[in-house]
Amino acid sequence: MTMTSVEGRHQRSDGVRTRASILAAAAALATTVGLDRLSIGGLADHIGISKSGLFAHFRSKEALQLATIEAAWQIFDADVVDPALRAPAGRQRALAFVDAYLDHLRRGVFPGGCFFASTSAEFHLRSGPVSARLAEFQWYWLGLIRASLEAAKRAGELDPDEDLDLLGFEIESHSLHAHLLYPIRRDARVLDLAHQAMRDRLRMPRPT
Amino acid sequence: MTMTSVEGRHQRSDGVRTRASILAAAAALATTVGLDRLSIGGLADHIGISKSGLFAHFRSKEALQLATIEAAWQIFDADVVDPALRAPAGRQRALAFVDAYLDHLRRGVFPGGCFFASTSAEFHLRSGPVSARLAEFQWYWLGLIRASLEAAKRAGELDPDEDLDLLGFEIESHSLHAHLLYPIRRDARVLDLAHQAMRDRLRMPRPT
Repeated sequence: MTMTSVEGRHQRSDGVRTRASILAAAAALATTVGLDRLSIGGLADHIGISKSGLFAHFRSKEALQLATIEAAWQIFDADVVDPALRAPAGRQRALAFVDAYLDHLRRGVFPGGCFFASTSAEFHLRSGPVSARLAEFQWYWLGLIRASLEAAKRAGELDPDEDLDLLGFEIESHSLHAHLLYPIRRDARVLDLAHQAMRDRLRMPRPT
Repeated sequence: MTMTSVEGRHQRSDGVRTRASILAAAAALATTVGLDRLSIGGLADHIGISKSGLFAHFRSKEALQLATIEAAWQIFDADVVDPALRAPAGRQRALAFVDAYLDHLRRGVFPGGCFFASTSAEFHLRSGPVSARLAEFQWYWLGLIRASLEAAKRAGELDPDEDLDLLGFEIESHSLHAHLLYPIRRDARVLDLAHQAMRDRLRMPRPT
């Protein structure tokens, strides 16, 4: 019984590892060829496993796409959100989000840049569960940035008249631009420009 | 002979009109389904003409894509560039480019936003003549903005220490962001935020 249990655990552990590595490959592929081209057949060819093996994990293209989004979300959290949440609330945390996002691009975690910016651009005019889940990510990420800006304003770290809709829009502008440009150019200057634009915008107000 | 000539001209004129209307439909479609999905068969179905009729105009998918880019470029010039070039060189012209671009989005000239932002995002990781031509457009457009900023700086309409690489990057950030968001939201607030961000950034330096 103990043996069976251990074996069972091993099998589950192997299964989990296989599923995670399949989804990491799927997420990477989605940022270059597109999430919509992520078919069970195409992904099976790409990672060199059997189509029937992959079909056992994900019974439809949509299930594969949704699981890929969840996997990419976990990677984004571990890589960008969690480290930034260790910074003190307010302006420092807003800067930590910006830095962590640009570092995520710099390290090329996904070959096409940011998984969510890539796939949201692809799905932005469609409807359905994949598009809805991507929209949920956008609200999550923009909500995190917004909360850090609100805390910064409350703490007097931003101009009291600062329009946070405008400031949030501007931060997102530069993040998207860096995402679009860096995977093509692979030029650190792109990330430096985005970083400087956001730092300038998040500067402390001048003492009056 | 005169008759033949007139007929010849009529035929050519009809041919030109047909070709222009086909390409306008192709450019519109490219901003929603993608330039890469613009096949001769798919476009023929979409606009309700025969595949053989369309094939007579464009002998390959690539020829169709390249002709679509030229048509979109002409539309962009007539709609955005030419009106802005009537503004005086310098800061006023930079603002005119920004205003004309946002107006182009507001009027929904292409259903997916800016033709060139859409298709460049789609082709940015590829090579070949389509990708090369899209890159040429980017240099053209960014060059126009850059020239207006340089003239503004020379005329003392910007801070003499202004980093024009940074300022150009920021203008492009907000343009891209508006392009990505407005076709989904259809909310004038998106264009207002982009407009305000760019106006703030292009403000006159404070008198010293």
